[in-house]
Amino acid sequence: MSECGSSNPVLVEILRGALVESSHTGAIAVADARGRLMLALGDVKHPVYPRSAVKAMQGLPLLESGAADAFALSEAELAVACASHSGDRVHLDTVGSLLAKAGLDDSYLACGAHWPVSEAATRELLRAGQRPRAIHNNCSGKHAGMLATAKHLGLDPRGYEQPDHPVQLMIARIISEICGNALDRARMGIDGCSVPTFALPLAALARGFARLGSGEGLPFERTLAARRLLHACFAEPLHVAGEGRFDTIVLRTLAPSCFTNGGAEGVHCASLPELGLGIALKIDDGAKRAAELVMSELLAALLPEAQHMLADQLGGEMQNWKGIVVGRVAPSEALRRAVAPLMTPSILS
Amino acid sequence: MSECGSSNPVLVEILRGALVESSHTGAIAVADARGRLMLALGDVKHPVYPRSAVKAMQGLPLLESGAADAFALSEAELAVACASHSGDRVHLDTVGSLLAKAGLDDSYLACGAHWPVSEAATRELLRAGQRPRAIHNNCSGKHAGMLATAKHLGLDPRGYEQPDHPVQLMIARIISEICGNALDRARMGIDGCSVPTFALPLAALARGFARLGSGEGLPFERTLAARRLLHACFAEPLHVAGEGRFDTIVLRTLAPSCFTNGGAEGVHCASLPELGLGIALKIDDGAKRAAELVMSELLAALLPEAQHMLADQLGGEMQNWKGIVVGRVAPSEALRRAVAPLMTPSILS
Repeated sequence: MSECGSSNPVLVEILRGALVESSHTGAIAVADARGRLMLALGDVKHPVYPRSAVKAMQGLPLLESGAADAFALSEAELAVACASHSGDRVHLDTVGSLLAKAGLDDSYLACGAHWPVSEAATRELLRAGQRPRAIHNNCSGKHAGMLATAKHLGLDPRGYEQPDHPVQLMIARIISEICGNALDRARMGIDGCSVPTFALPLAALARGFARLGSGEGLPFERTLAARRLLHACFAEPLHVAGEGRFDTIVLRTLAPSCFTNGGAEGVHCASLPELGLGIALKIDDGAKRAAELVMSELLAALLPEAQHMLADQLGGEMQNWKGIVVGRVAPSEALRRAVAPLMTPSILS
Repeated sequence: MSECGSSNPVLVEILRGALVESSHTGAIAVADARGRLMLALGDVKHPVYPRSAVKAMQGLPLLESGAADAFALSEAELAVACASHSGDRVHLDTVGSLLAKAGLDDSYLACGAHWPVSEAATRELLRAGQRPRAIHNNCSGKHAGMLATAKHLGLDPRGYEQPDHPVQLMIARIISEICGNALDRARMGIDGCSVPTFALPLAALARGFARLGSGEGLPFERTLAARRLLHACFAEPLHVAGEGRFDTIVLRTLAPSCFTNGGAEGVHCASLPELGLGIALKIDDGAKRAAELVMSELLAALLPEAQHMLADQLGGEMQNWKGIVVGRVAPSEALRRAVAPLMTPSILS
C-alpha cells in the first residue's frame, strides 16, 4: 500500500452504482466559547484560510466603529455586509444603498468582477448584452461594509483592501481576539476578492464562532455588535446568500438556532447561539458539495429540527442529465460515527 | 494523528501565500501494451469509473461495424463521436450532420440536455432566449455515433443507451478486450449521459490506452479502426473538445505523439502511440484542476516537446478576480519524485 496521503479521515463518499466513485477527506471542530472541543475529527490544529466563512467577523467593525448607526444602515444592509451574495437584483440594490448612505458608489469597490453566482442574474446580464461589474462580485457587500467603515472613521477609502489599511488591521485584530489566536503575517494570503485572509486552526475558528453567537468570552460592546449582526442575518436570510443557496436555506429554516457562512475551498463555519457552540470544518480538496453535506450532518445531529429542514441537503441524491438517479453523496462511516455522540443530551452539560 | 484517510498520495497542492490551502490525492498508472507498469503511484488496482475518458473506445463500433464507411463519415464526425465537446456551433453542426447521414436527427438523442460547456455558446443561447437541448450535451457526439452504429446494423435505435442494447453490449465487449479485463455488472454505473459506465483498474485502463495507440495486442481490424479514429482526432482537435479546453490543446500541440481524453470525477487517460504507452489517472475527490495538472506533468516528463507546449497548464498560477496572482496549483513532492524517472531514456527500452 502506498504512503498515506492524508492524515484526515474520509468524510464524504460519492456513490455511483454499487461503488464509491470519489471521496473527500477533511477535518471538523465543534467547540464551546472556552475552546473545549465537543468534536475534533482530523487535524483541527492545522492552519486553514477561512476565506468567506469569517465574513460575519469581518463585518463587526461596521458596527463597532459606529458606522452602521451613523449611516442608519438597515438590517438588509448589515446582512449583505456579511454575505457571499448571489448577485441578484435585490443584492445589487442593497449593496448600492449601503454605499450611497456612506456617500460612496460602486466605483470604489476593489473586489474585482465576476459573473453573478445566480444563474438567473447571469442570464439577465447576458440578455442585456452586459458584462458583470465589481458590484456583482459575491463579496461586494463585505467590501461595501469595509468602505463605509473607512468613510465613517474619516480614513481614505482608497486602498481599504490592503493589509496595512486601518480597516483591515481592525478586522485582523477583531478576528484574532474573537478566536483567541494571534494572526500571523506568515499565514496571510490574498483572498479572491483581494482582501487579506489569515489562516487559523479549525479549533480556534470553532471557538470564535461559539463566542460570536453567544457573546460568551467577548467584551460587552462586541457581544452587542455580534448580536445585531447575526440578528440582521436572521431577519434577512436572502441577503446573506441567495435563493437556493445553502446558507440562506439554513438561516430561513433554523434561525435563530443557527447561523452559517461558507467559504471557498471547502470551508464552512457555524454558530449555534442557544447551544453556545461553534463549528468549523475544512474539506481538504476544497469541494463545496462535501462541505455542505458535512455541515448538514452536524446540524442535523445538534439541532433536532434540522433533520427535517435540511432533508434535501442530507438526502444527497445525484441525478444525471435525464433526471435518472445515478448515485448519492453520502456521509462516510467515520463521519457518521463521529457525529452520533453529538446527539446525546450529555454533550450539552 | 487521526486514522489515515486515503491510501493514495497527495499529487497536487493548492498554494496560497506561503501555505498549502487545499490538496488532492489520487493514483496514476503508466503502462505498455503488455500491461507492464512504468509507473504505479497509489492504488492502480482499485476499480475506477472511467466516464468520458474511454470515449475513443466507445467509438470503435462505429468503425468496426462498418457504419462509418457506410455513412461516409468525415474525420470531423469521427472526432466528435469521441468528444466531450464544448457545444459550440461547429460541434452542433457536426453532430447534426453525423445524425443526418445516418438518417436520424437529434430527437433520438437520449443523453439529456445541459448548458454548453463553452461560455460563449451558453451566452449565445441566452441572448436568443433559448434553453439547451440534448445536442448541446457534451456527450451528444458519442451518442450520435452509437445511434449511427445501431442504424447501420439494422437495430432499433430507441433504447440504444440501455445496458442490454446490442450497441452497448458491443462497446462493453470491446472495452473489456482492449483493456484485458472482464467487465462486471456489479461494477456498472449509469453515466451522466445515461449510458453504462464500467469500473476498471487504472492499470487495466493504462494497458488499454497503450494498445489503442500502438495497435500492439489488438486484432488487426481493431488496430485499423483505432488508427482511423485517433487520426481523425489528430486531424480535428477542435471537435474533440473545444477552444481553450485541455484535450484540444494537447491534440493541437502534441499530435500525433499524444491523444488524451478526460472524464468526469477527475479521470484522465492518454495514449502515446510512438512510445507504446498508455496513461490512466484518477483524482480521488474528482477535481478536474488536479487531473489536468497531473496529466500535464506526466506528458512533460514523457514527451520533451510537452514541457514547452503545455507551459500554461504546468505553470498553474492562480489569479483572483482583479488578476492579482494569489497562489499556485502545483505538483506535490510525491508526484515530482514519481515522474522524474519517466524522463530517463532507459524507460523506453
